[in-house]
Amino acid sequence: MQVTSQTISIKEIAGGSVISPKGFKADGVHAGLRYSKKDLGIIISDLPANCAAVYTTSHFQAAPLKVTKDSIAMEQKIQAMIVNSACANACTGEKGLNDAFQMRKWTAEKFGLAEHLVAVASTGVIGEFLPMEKIEQGIQKLHPECDPLHSDAFQTAILTTDIVMKHCCYSAIIDGVTVSMGGAAKGSGMINPNMATMLGFITTDANIDSTHLQAALGQVTDTSFNQITVDGDTSTNDMVLCLANGLSGNKQLTPNHLDWEVFVELLSKTCESLARQIAKDGEGATKLIEVNVQGAECDLDARKIAKQIVGSNLVKTAVYGEDANWGRIIGAIGQADAHVNPYTVDIAIGPIVMLKNSEPQPFSEEDASEYLRNPNIQIYVDLHQGNGTGKAWGCDLSYDYVKINASYRS
Amino acid sequence: MQVTSQTISIKEIAGGSVISPKGFKADGVHAGLRYSKKDLGIIISDLPANCAAVYTTSHFQAAPLKVTKDSIAMEQKIQAMIVNSACANACTGEKGLNDAFQMRKWTAEKFGLAEHLVAVASTGVIGEFLPMEKIEQGIQKLHPECDPLHSDAFQTAILTTDIVMKHCCYSAIIDGVTVSMGGAAKGSGMINPNMATMLGFITTDANIDSTHLQAALGQVTDTSFNQITVDGDTSTNDMVLCLANGLSGNKQLTPNHLDWEVFVELLSKTCESLARQIAKDGEGATKLIEVNVQGAECDLDARKIAKQIVGSNLVKTAVYGEDANWGRIIGAIGQADAHVNPYTVDIAIGPIVMLKNSEPQPFSEEDASEYLRNPNIQIYVDLHQGNGTGKAWGCDLSYDYVKINASYRS
Repeated sequence: MQVTSQTISIKEIAGGSVISPKGFKADGVHAGLRYSKKDLGIIISDLPANCAAVYTTSHFQAAPLKVTKDSIAMEQKIQAMIVNSACANACTGEKGLNDAFQMRKWTAEKFGLAEHLVAVASTGVIGEFLPMEKIEQGIQKLHPECDPLHSDAFQTAILTTDIVMKHCCYSAIIDGVTVSMGGAAKGSGMINPNMATMLGFITTDANIDSTHLQAALGQVTDTSFNQITVDGDTSTNDMVLCLANGLSGNKQLTPNHLDWEVFVELLSKTCESLARQIAKDGEGATKLIEVNVQGAECDLDARKIAKQIVGSNLVKTAVYGEDANWGRIIGAIGQADAHVNPYTVDIAIGPIVMLKNSEPQPFSEEDASEYLRNPNIQIYVDLHQGNGTGKAWGCDLSYDYVKINASYRS
Repeated sequence: MQVTSQTISIKEIAGGSVISPKGFKADGVHAGLRYSKKDLGIIISDLPANCAAVYTTSHFQAAPLKVTKDSIAMEQKIQAMIVNSACANACTGEKGLNDAFQMRKWTAEKFGLAEHLVAVASTGVIGEFLPMEKIEQGIQKLHPECDPLHSDAFQTAILTTDIVMKHCCYSAIIDGVTVSMGGAAKGSGMINPNMATMLGFITTDANIDSTHLQAALGQVTDTSFNQITVDGDTSTNDMVLCLANGLSGNKQLTPNHLDWEVFVELLSKTCESLARQIAKDGEGATKLIEVNVQGAECDLDARKIAKQIVGSNLVKTAVYGEDANWGRIIGAIGQADAHVNPYTVDIAIGPIVMLKNSEPQPFSEEDASEYLRNPNIQIYVDLHQGNGTGKAWGCDLSYDYVKINASYRS
């Protein structure tokens, strides 16, 4: 069942973050992994929270992901998430794995938790070891609180080439009580396997067990985080973690709960917001590109086509150049691993229709160029084959993308 | 059976081209589709030649491909190949298809051939109609000859954003007679769906029927043209056509012929040479990147991994920036749709080993940077899992790529 925000009331909390739901605190400090910026952060729940996680599909999963999986496997609960930037601790062999376990241990000791209640995440350069002395001292400096100063500190500490913090908060009424959900994310090259990583952290005071939270997160990830691309590269360190501590007091959520769809929509809004923020802050990006596909044989086909378009270097450079070059959109659709009838395709860029039933339509180049000067570009495709719909988000490809990535390590 | 150039003697003919094999002529003229450059070319055989062709897998095959398929379907023979640049005649509906048939008809009339002996190819902007009056007049101006002036004219007429002509010629002894094979190609964005296209034209005086030629071309395409990428985009107009007119006088080639492997190697060398030339002339490219993968479970896995590496924007920008960023190579391997043991991978850039058994190796950054200043960059990957090998070719991603593609139409 397709649920839209018209039928379900989801409220956006301006300035909200991962500490907006009840019972969460955060902090971020400068541990010295980076020259002067904050580089170590924590989110902590007042009590062990049920949790769900999704991980990169890369063949090379980084050490922190293995440690986090180890933690969750114990009782599907997490109370603290420790995150560092600057070093991905990926491709670091046995020593790297021991380092990630040690980072978990120090965090558990500092906050008086069982080790398996701590999740670990890292983002930064691949193939370098964590500076363990700095990590140890940094953990001691962490003093999580529930105020915007501390949530900003967390949101800043997880960034690498990102320019802006990415966070959001939404709430909805479930069982007559307010359930809140907050998110923070990082990721600028999506996924730049060097400064590795897209990381997403979601907190909620909803009452839901880990199994159902995992099911909801998996479903929602496919239409949000998995539908963004900046450069088509998948990191060794990607991870989205969601903690639910149950403090809002709703009856336990399952798919049979009357408000189940409300909860899924709440999660969907949160993930989609973070995904859009990541796409918009793509390396070198000057514009957010949102592709909307309808009329596909199924939703999966629509999502594949949307992502193929938003991932095309040629579409991305055309948008950067403010050139209404719909031939490149056709090129991308033509290449998608999906069912496409080549004779029934409509394409519009913003309000301007350029192709109808696969026949070129006359349009004003000036109007098109004017539209393409917007910071948010909408591309619409209708395949007229079925009811499948899908969206994807990305950014343009600029000189600055080349500049950032031609010299990232130096 | 893997055949190497050590065991089979293939001779490269310096300056050779599509007219080097016996019985082929070519020409190229300025028909007025472009401002001043040549834009219409032809290759013609003294007699109907057996032929093979491979086409783009795009859902949107352009009109000229449909006409060429129609020609070949009649008796699997082609005598003339007419090609225009500047306009791809793709996404042009019924009128575009009629135009391509008309282009074939005029060519057949001018050279006194049956229509079905003419193949048609186009490359250029998608969604615009061919200027038919110019095409008609241009065809009248074509006077194919067998000299370098005329083959250069052909090789120039098929280019779009390409900077250099791409051609080669090889020969081998088969049945005691010299069999020659020549090639010409275009493609700079691989494949830029706007200035659509990678086109390859191969001529040979070998005696081989169309069925076996098709089998050999299909096999060789998988390890040559299909292993290059400039921007990951697949065109609506891609096509490789191979004509064999039999004038060398060898006994008809089949897989049972003693020299079958010699012929396949001849075709392989020709296709690989053209593929490398296309990769090297990629839009904005300053360096050719060749990736060599060994130790994969099978050749297909090795090819997939090689192509994933060479197609990664992050690897491409690192090479452009002369940054020995092997973490990005790991990122690309991690993402490949192939079997990968994450604990046994070796990576070297040129002579410099950076990863061994998935553990980072110390290396001199100065040596690495010095190597990366070369115009031809070799990347080696050994997975230590099996005997599968594969190569792929591409180019770096520079500011000029963005410049060229942000303003192609204007």
